[in-house]
Amino acid sequence: MTEDVFRPRARLPRGLGDLRDGEFRARSAMLERLADTCASWGFVALDTPLLEYADALGKFLPDEERPNAGVFALTDDDEQWLALRYDLTAPLARHVATHYDELPKPFRRYQYGAVFRNEKPDAGRFRQFWQFDADVVGAPAPFADAELFALAAACLDALGLQGAYALRLSNRKLLDGLLESLGIAPTSGSAATRRLAILRAIDKLDRLGLNAVAELLGAGRKDASGDFTPGAQLPPDAVERVLAFVRSGAQGDNEAILGRLQDLLRDSAIGCQGVEELHAVEALMGNFGVGEECVRMDPSIVRGLEYYTGPIFEIELGGKDARLARFGSIGGGGRYDDLVARFKGVVVPATGFSIGISRLQAGLQVINEKVSSSSERLQLVILMPSSADRSAAASMARMLRQAGVCAEVYLGSGGMRAQMRYADRRNAKIAVIQGEQERARGEVTLRNLVLGKRLSADMKDASAWKEGGAAQIRIPERDLLQRIREMLLAIGDSSP
Amino acid sequence: MTEDVFRPRARLPRGLGDLRDGEFRARSAMLERLADTCASWGFVALDTPLLEYADALGKFLPDEERPNAGVFALTDDDEQWLALRYDLTAPLARHVATHYDELPKPFRRYQYGAVFRNEKPDAGRFRQFWQFDADVVGAPAPFADAELFALAAACLDALGLQGAYALRLSNRKLLDGLLESLGIAPTSGSAATRRLAILRAIDKLDRLGLNAVAELLGAGRKDASGDFTPGAQLPPDAVERVLAFVRSGAQGDNEAILGRLQDLLRDSAIGCQGVEELHAVEALMGNFGVGEECVRMDPSIVRGLEYYTGPIFEIELGGKDARLARFGSIGGGGRYDDLVARFKGVVVPATGFSIGISRLQAGLQVINEKVSSSSERLQLVILMPSSADRSAAASMARMLRQAGVCAEVYLGSGGMRAQMRYADRRNAKIAVIQGEQERARGEVTLRNLVLGKRLSADMKDASAWKEGGAAQIRIPERDLLQRIREMLLAIGDSSP
Repeated sequence: MTEDVFRPRARLPRGLGDLRDGEFRARSAMLERLADTCASWGFVALDTPLLEYADALGKFLPDEERPNAGVFALTDDDEQWLALRYDLTAPLARHVATHYDELPKPFRRYQYGAVFRNEKPDAGRFRQFWQFDADVVGAPAPFADAELFALAAACLDALGLQGAYALRLSNRKLLDGLLESLGIAPTSGSAATRRLAILRAIDKLDRLGLNAVAELLGAGRKDASGDFTPGAQLPPDAVERVLAFVRSGAQGDNEAILGRLQDLLRDSAIGCQGVEELHAVEALMGNFGVGEECVRMDPSIVRGLEYYTGPIFEIELGGKDARLARFGSIGGGGRYDDLVARFKGVVVPATGFSIGISRLQAGLQVINEKVSSSSERLQLVILMPSSADRSAAASMARMLRQAGVCAEVYLGSGGMRAQMRYADRRNAKIAVIQGEQERARGEVTLRNLVLGKRLSADMKDASAWKEGGAAQIRIPERDLLQRIREMLLAIGDSSP
Repeated sequence: MTEDVFRPRARLPRGLGDLRDGEFRARSAMLERLADTCASWGFVALDTPLLEYADALGKFLPDEERPNAGVFALTDDDEQWLALRYDLTAPLARHVATHYDELPKPFRRYQYGAVFRNEKPDAGRFRQFWQFDADVVGAPAPFADAELFALAAACLDALGLQGAYALRLSNRKLLDGLLESLGIAPTSGSAATRRLAILRAIDKLDRLGLNAVAELLGAGRKDASGDFTPGAQLPPDAVERVLAFVRSGAQGDNEAILGRLQDLLRDSAIGCQGVEELHAVEALMGNFGVGEECVRMDPSIVRGLEYYTGPIFEIELGGKDARLARFGSIGGGGRYDDLVARFKGVVVPATGFSIGISRLQAGLQVINEKVSSSSERLQLVILMPSSADRSAAASMARMLRQAGVCAEVYLGSGGMRAQMRYADRRNAKIAVIQGEQERARGEVTLRNLVLGKRLSADMKDASAWKEGGAAQIRIPERDLLQRIREMLLAIGDSSP
């Protein structure tokens, strides 16, 4: 190659990353369990393309000047805007609207895959990430919501997370009731803006605390940097009422919390309906097998600003294992009755949840180290003193694989030292070595690499190491499979 | 909603499609088997993002006027071009170049996922489709190639396709040798253009036949529509030589074919090396367990125009099952020693294969109807005469699922007729029905929906049908699980 050849840099765009063997297989195993759980509840799989028409995804046409605001968008040959999906719910709504008449209703589906957000990437915040969703389309509250929230719990249980999570429940109707009792009708134009400001303020409770929320509900708030955020301009007594609402989930059992909410919202029909639905959802979740201790009523959760219309919930890791608390919310969902209506013009009731797969996986790794260690599948590498040994090595690999042993043949051109280094880097447990003379005598050498590593750490004498010492044995070739099995068992690998 | 609300059409862009439950789960099961096979040969998984820098993918910067020629491209915030990956090999080269020093070498990896081509979609040709790839980076021919081709065979065997495919083998060095013997050096500029024209002509053999290839090698060819394609301008004796080369795979066993090629290319060192490598690859594939009858030498395969540098192969469905022949090539691959060099400036030997997942799946469905029928996981639906029965239904579903039965609860608001229709549309095998009075008596009704359908087809008497006849039984609730298991067994469903 000459020097003036164009040579691109080998790099990834910001906010995108590769997933390697262990993590990839742990993710696959996790997704398989989630899918199995959903299937055993009667949910069917759906897979939709990563690209869709931007308008069908529910983002309005991207600004021609900044086509990538929030989504990755591009124009098709016919000048229509396409975009990479930013969640799995919008494609579901599109699928249901397209096939409305042929689908059995209610329609239960699960789906998982990559979604994209064209936002500023940050530590742990990616522009491509995976979600797992389950939804029920065509069934009203509260039975479908209870089933769905209980399914979320069953999914986490299937991953071994019993007792290590909590479901925080609320209902968008509570908030609508509160606004109604404050004289802010949810439909009128300026009221909608104010409603949004109130929701935004409540949403900041976890991050900024109660005083900041009070300021944001009232005149506004100046933060540490001096930036001023305008408030929702509620009068002081209304601010107090909203704060009482938000705090009502802070103590007591669910019965007590729902009682307080009932008091607070007794003048609003929609508010009372919200409380009633939560009673029903909680009781039904019990029937579906969710323990009381996993469910917590909490009216301070907001979960998306303009999307939900009924019961909502958030999944929080924590519970029995304090190390999990830092992961916080790993997903959630709730009722959204207006999404299919975008296409159809008629309301189609729907409820669903979405789990962030990377966060869930990170949480799982903390409590379940097996998940990552079981990902080391490779058991042995066959090394070759000379390249003339290759056909014999290939035949040996074939025999071992047929017996269920995960085996690879060294493929490079390095000498024995390089081959041993390779076996170490691959975390192989055993090296099988057979030179021409050994083969002629019907023998083969097995080296226990795990024991070898331990011995070499203790050993002072380099020559003892070189000979392999206790870690290395020469055996008759006819005993190969049996001796490999024994060695794997001694090492603690029980896969084959 | 008012009439002037923007209402998008629920539709997908051309060349993109949804995948539903049965197909999705058949694909997942297939991918899992392929991944397992690769893992047991010591290959590690890799997952790369769907978006990459366009230059890193090896397409040069898209034309600003037609940024979407061949790929889906868009600019990032910093004006750099991103593109959706069009295969899994370019991302592998980028990954290896980025992490070259830390990776064990040789590096064996497998990967599967969606790739994108922004081309005119056609019947069965999509703009998003799935590929499964395996590659070895850092190992020279012929041992690594033999392992890789044998792995492709092992992957197909793992899917139950023994004897239903053939691997057609060739070597890009044969062609280079042929060109050398024709006095066309492979490196000089105008010779490169001619080489490409010759490759393109040979590539058309399957579609247009030998005469058309002869014209394309010589002065050019006018097709039925009158369009003229300029030829490679070879003199008649050179055309004859190329045709003899192309035809040399048409008869005899592999030994005879390689003998003919050896004769034809005896004056070219590179050509002889190509023949020798094929001898070695075939012998080693035998050691890896590939039967002779699956391997066919065929110098007429081209497989990509400017990419491969050594042994190449194509996977063709067919063999024992004539119905499979129409699927033709479902994948293939070979040696490409220059791809990582794009980044690194040093040659890194590599070899790999790629399988088209939709084609393979379509082929599998033809020979293995089990694959699609086993995808019906749902076993029963619990129906509810009144919505007051819901908590009991939820508890019943919980009990059945814990016992491994795949059960769902009807979620809609329809009456019994609508509920039965729903159970039919979901292809459930059993309906479980329990009204309030039955529950009070400790009884439950089971309806065998498979038998019911068969009876109703025979039955003349509508009232007999209404009563359910032989298809419906009332049983004590305590026997529920056992009677369900018996009924599923009678239906021929043995999953739980």
